[in-house]
Amino acid sequence: MEINNGAVLANEEGMKGKKSWGCKANERIIGCDSTIRGTVSMLTSHLNPHDPRPKVPFSQGDPSSFPSFRTSPVVEDAIVEALRSAKFNSYSPNCGVLNARRAVAEYLSRDLPIKLSPDQVLLTAGASQAIAFIISVLATPGANILLPQPGYLFYNTRATFSNLECRSYDLLPEQGWEVDINTVKALADENTVAMVIINPGNPCGNVYSYHHLKKVAETAEKLGILVIADEVYGHIAFGDKPFVPMGVFGSIVPIITLGSLSKRWVVPGWRLGWIATIDPNGILLESKIMESLKVCLNITNYPATFIQGAVPQILERTNGEFFERILNMLRQTSDILVDKLREIDCITCPHKPQGAMFTMVKLNVSLLEDIKDDMEFSIKLAKEESVLVLPGSSMGIKNWLRIMFAIEPDLLKDGLERIKSFCQRHAKLN
Amino acid sequence: MEINNGAVLANEEGMKGKKSWGCKANERIIGCDSTIRGTVSMLTSHLNPHDPRPKVPFSQGDPSSFPSFRTSPVVEDAIVEALRSAKFNSYSPNCGVLNARRAVAEYLSRDLPIKLSPDQVLLTAGASQAIAFIISVLATPGANILLPQPGYLFYNTRATFSNLECRSYDLLPEQGWEVDINTVKALADENTVAMVIINPGNPCGNVYSYHHLKKVAETAEKLGILVIADEVYGHIAFGDKPFVPMGVFGSIVPIITLGSLSKRWVVPGWRLGWIATIDPNGILLESKIMESLKVCLNITNYPATFIQGAVPQILERTNGEFFERILNMLRQTSDILVDKLREIDCITCPHKPQGAMFTMVKLNVSLLEDIKDDMEFSIKLAKEESVLVLPGSSMGIKNWLRIMFAIEPDLLKDGLERIKSFCQRHAKLN
Ligand SMILES: Cc1ncc(COP(=O)(O)O)c(C=O)c1O
Ligand SMILES: Cc1ncc(COP(=O)(O)O)c(C=O)c1O
Repeated sequence: MEINNGAVLANEEGMKGKKSWGCKANERIIGCDSTIRGTVSMLTSHLNPHDPRPKVPFSQGDPSSFPSFRTSPVVEDAIVEALRSAKFNSYSPNCGVLNARRAVAEYLSRDLPIKLSPDQVLLTAGASQAIAFIISVLATPGANILLPQPGYLFYNTRATFSNLECRSYDLLPEQGWEVDINTVKALADENTVAMVIINPGNPCGNVYSYHHLKKVAETAEKLGILVIADEVYGHIAFGDKPFVPMGVFGSIVPIITLGSLSKRWVVPGWRLGWIATIDPNGILLESKIMESLKVCLNITNYPATFIQGAVPQILERTNGEFFERILNMLRQTSDILVDKLREIDCITCPHKPQGAMFTMVKLNVSLLEDIKDDMEFSIKLAKEESVLVLPGSSMGIKNWLRIMFAIEPDLLKDGLERIKSFCQRHAKLN
Repeated sequence: MEINNGAVLANEEGMKGKKSWGCKANERIIGCDSTIRGTVSMLTSHLNPHDPRPKVPFSQGDPSSFPSFRTSPVVEDAIVEALRSAKFNSYSPNCGVLNARRAVAEYLSRDLPIKLSPDQVLLTAGASQAIAFIISVLATPGANILLPQPGYLFYNTRATFSNLECRSYDLLPEQGWEVDINTVKALADENTVAMVIINPGNPCGNVYSYHHLKKVAETAEKLGILVIADEVYGHIAFGDKPFVPMGVFGSIVPIITLGSLSKRWVVPGWRLGWIATIDPNGILLESKIMESLKVCLNITNYPATFIQGAVPQILERTNGEFFERILNMLRQTSDILVDKLREIDCITCPHKPQGAMFTMVKLNVSLLEDIKDDMEFSIKLAKEESVLVLPGSSMGIKNWLRIMFAIEPDLLKDGLERIKSFCQRHAKLN
């Protein structure tokens, strides 16, 4: 469509002849719209509006709307205090509010052999922004990055946006979703700049041992690539293995760790995350990575200043009881999940989740009558049962499902019952 | 520096020979670090730490730390209410909280001949993020965009980042900093996608008349380019001309307007802005611009959900008295500024500011002894008087200065006295 008229234009003084309405959006951007959010929207569109039962959102990574997962009042109080002080209405200082960066440095250092300085910490609008910045900074021409599969799709989305090549290494379901070190070695070449490791894991609910993480660090060191440790679910470990931060191995290989308040404090809507470099040997200094991350922050956006201002209180005052309560809820809900899944023939859970709030389960479509794959399973389940589960194919592994179990226990049980009767209804008769 | 050792590597199973530590940051990003923030940091580094007098920040666009410019309690209450409701701890819904988008649509529609729908509004992390998105979306290969000069540097920064060519059209100081329509016509060609207009203006303090804005809209229509109306200072008009939103001319040419809570509500740290398309003729539909902006939001970041949740209350409840108080302060401080500048020989103010919180003044260096340009002026002024003013050359116009006058009146007078004595001290003797 044109908004100008060639005939008129040609007569206009200063005009350069006919020009059609030239404004078109950059197509590359439209091409980047593959997110979990997008898949969930698609599934949501299939919900039956006449089903009187509540929707069961096994698909999201956000339990914050459930009363049992409400954040601590201490955390809300810290925000109100920062806001009412009127000290944090201004634009954020460069790199973020210093006291908040210091508080994050101290928080992370509690579990590390070294003490981080505030200079090694940047505050970001959630870990998502941390991911966006890291990918932008690493996206030099020809470079590639190693990502876990199954993994967190946002890395791929941002890499596509920044023209950074992704190579997927496998996680091994039979070995507690450990990193397949052999595929990592096989995939890396002279253009590989980094590998991402997610621990505790989305979507697998894995918690890696000290020993395994050390092996990963040593592999990265040999390959000459840095490790991006996505620790958004840091400390959310409710099985027998404790959470070990990757930064413990910073003297083996440089680590960029990222985290946020989103999961442990159950406030994903607050958009407060961080990036920290753990690099006691100073290997990253020459790479200008920290410098470039700062530029990204400068030319993009800081998290809301008063939320930054509340970070010291949030990190210092949230009491152990709150964290224990959340971990107990996750232990309880993951037990309910795994028990119930045993009653469903076409679904198997290769590894009981030990961390985060997800598990990956295998769908055996050969046992189903009229469902050909995970995508069809998810769509029909949404339609018939108002239950949302994330199809593995939206994360690159077909015929798996991701189930988020941080759900109010009654609703969780109800949802699992519905999956069970759905599977029975669609079972092959033989 | 290498963290791996070629000799060892060559013997490792699965290794592909020696590889030096390949991780280098993307140089393009470092190259994008030209922001007002950067210039202010540089000037700040020249401050004399032994000067007992308070620093006078004529350089920033943020009066929120001054008691006279504190935001309304109503606005803080709205945040506390949204936070305490615990309804807004979750990730934001797609495109932002619906009630907040509806409230912005209604807020903007008050001054428009048409009624916007919430679908035409996206919520962004400040107008800065709105700018970043618009530039990304318009940055198709070969495209260019017309920007005002003097203008707001962030457009240039983001355009450099996105490889979008910038062409600067002039603002005319003698005509109240109106758009030089002739340079706009001369610069536009078949690859021009849009022009940006900032009203009320940063850095010039201009408020454009209905008549002038209409002429701009008609020019854009003839050129077949859309108008990006930066109305971050919308309604901040304290002279004799009222603020007219560009959207009034949406039936002439499609308008993308952007705004935020930052300036009118004096809370720039909250990071809440918006983009709205005003396009009653539906010209933008085919361009997929709105669709692409939504993808940008999806793959980037939403403003904090509870801040979004407070937007309806903020927009509905902030009373006229608060806005009047702020406008009175600006009228008073701009009067003080203009009066005082008349006493300074080497500085002339071609146009009394009527809006926003800035003015551009011309520096006559030929009257100064040992100062060769605006940059040297600003650096020496910071050093000797602890007064920060923004050199025009950091905005592309040499030997001008930007002065922000939304400052507590006593400090403002003190700062202007210091500029006066600085100029006298450095005056050429003849
Ligand atoms: C593995 C992983 N990394 C990063 C993020 C983003 O976290 P944030 O909410 O802090 O942006 C998520 C969110 O679900 C995640 O699962
Ligand atoms: C002209 C102009 N546009 C946009 C912005 C960015 O506004 P926000 O604080 O909402 O990101 C500013 C901030 O100073 C500005 O002056």
